[in-house]
Amino acid sequence: MSGLEKIADNLAFGGRQQQWLHNSEALSCRMRFSVYLPPAAEHSKLPWLLWLSGLTCTDENFSHKAGAQRLAAELGVALVMPDTSPRGEGVADDSAYDLGQGAGFYVNAEREPWRGHYRMYDYVSQELPALLRRHFPLNGRCAIAGHSMGGHGALVCAIRRPQDYVSASAFSPICQPTQAPWGRKAFAAYLGNDETAWAEWDASLLLAERGCPLPLRVDIGLADAFLAEQLRPDALQQAARRGDTRLELHRHAGYDHSYYFVASFIDQHLRFHARHLLA
Amino acid sequence: MSGLEKIADNLAFGGRQQQWLHNSEALSCRMRFSVYLPPAAEHSKLPWLLWLSGLTCTDENFSHKAGAQRLAAELGVALVMPDTSPRGEGVADDSAYDLGQGAGFYVNAEREPWRGHYRMYDYVSQELPALLRRHFPLNGRCAIAGHSMGGHGALVCAIRRPQDYVSASAFSPICQPTQAPWGRKAFAAYLGNDETAWAEWDASLLLAERGCPLPLRVDIGLADAFLAEQLRPDALQQAARRGDTRLELHRHAGYDHSYYFVASFIDQHLRFHARHLLA
Repeated sequence: MSGLEKIADNLAFGGRQQQWLHNSEALSCRMRFSVYLPPAAEHSKLPWLLWLSGLTCTDENFSHKAGAQRLAAELGVALVMPDTSPRGEGVADDSAYDLGQGAGFYVNAEREPWRGHYRMYDYVSQELPALLRRHFPLNGRCAIAGHSMGGHGALVCAIRRPQDYVSASAFSPICQPTQAPWGRKAFAAYLGNDETAWAEWDASLLLAERGCPLPLRVDIGLADAFLAEQLRPDALQQAARRGDTRLELHRHAGYDHSYYFVASFIDQHLRFHARHLLA
Repeated sequence: MSGLEKIADNLAFGGRQQQWLHNSEALSCRMRFSVYLPPAAEHSKLPWLLWLSGLTCTDENFSHKAGAQRLAAELGVALVMPDTSPRGEGVADDSAYDLGQGAGFYVNAEREPWRGHYRMYDYVSQELPALLRRHFPLNGRCAIAGHSMGGHGALVCAIRRPQDYVSASAFSPICQPTQAPWGRKAFAAYLGNDETAWAEWDASLLLAERGCPLPLRVDIGLADAFLAEQLRPDALQQAARRGDTRLELHRHAGYDHSYYFVASFIDQHLRFHARHLLA
């Protein structure tokens, strides 16, 4: 049983901004997610954007800070915001901000103490979309996007299962986690020390090997303190060239890693996805 | 000495979203505020909107959640967001959310233990604007707006000192605090039990007595749980009629007290103020 329960419902730009709880089978815990349903959702099933958030975030950061609902309402594109990890007292955690709760990294963990709950890839790519299409006015046309760790998640999902999406985009993504401190720490914990197993969770390695038939867009701020060490967009760009992938990579002078950067360009991402979602 | 210190600076929509600390004389403590400077502030002094927030808020709620920077950048209107009370270890407080820190009510307190620090009216109407005009690229054209307790504050400031503003607006304001539980509790604590002294902090009583030469706009959500008991917009509307004041009062079916309501209509408020700020 999904145990689906609505815990918040606010009118926003003529549509509904809602927060829900449900029992996740993939994660073996109760999970919260947010959804924004534009006014047009009252009359028909809408295409939708799945947004994956970054380290320390919940379903609320994008909902509160990105300012995406205004244009989503106008375009008739629904927004879905999952949490960033399993949660709860029985769920393994770590005192660091970049491991454990709030830091699921959108992988399926294989190591103790994580593997019982930390299956965020299965959750965001399979279980949650199925639940959403069953219970919400959403159709089969889905785009995926995210920020930082969530940008990594969005790219990995899109490259691994391009048949599930019409387009993918990312703000400030961790483009090559196997070579970045955040990624190496998380992958060692969740996946183990055999680095060959990490390759299937690294967007740059995946893209170089498989390519991606989807239109991809990535935006990076050049004043992002994490740019060189953690994000490594050059690796993604090189992989896209090798894989013959349509990647638009936009570099923005002066912008940093914050949601002010996301808010500044979210309209461009929504219009990018709408071209494919509404085609 | 103002002790002005910049503690955050993010590029947003081509402008600067900044957070500052300074020593407040009116409040006898160190205070934080946020400011958004549109791109045009690099070349000239801009008109600005002073935003007063509601109970429990800081300078960050509007900065993060209202989505105002996008249109402010386009219009060339700066935004200034003060905190909602004095702060710090030496500042009197109360365990309730609606009294003490986070709940200054934009009055000058006259009673112990509050009167040493709680002079938010002097702070937002005098000290902070003077500091801003001295240190930031802001000109003398200022509008004032706010939400809930901050809507009360914006209306009271505008009616008491109309010469300082070109226009005023409010979302979900506490229109008649002398008759509302939030207002009565705060006024009794800050001002004492003599209710005659409360009248000069009540927008409806002030407006009925003095009128207001400024264009005023108020937006209310009809699904606001606080509407009838705490906000009392009918009292403001009646006072405006008696005082021959230009009050636009917009009622919106389905909207509640949250920042999703503010975000949904902030563009309309910004355009309302821009008509007067840029005239």
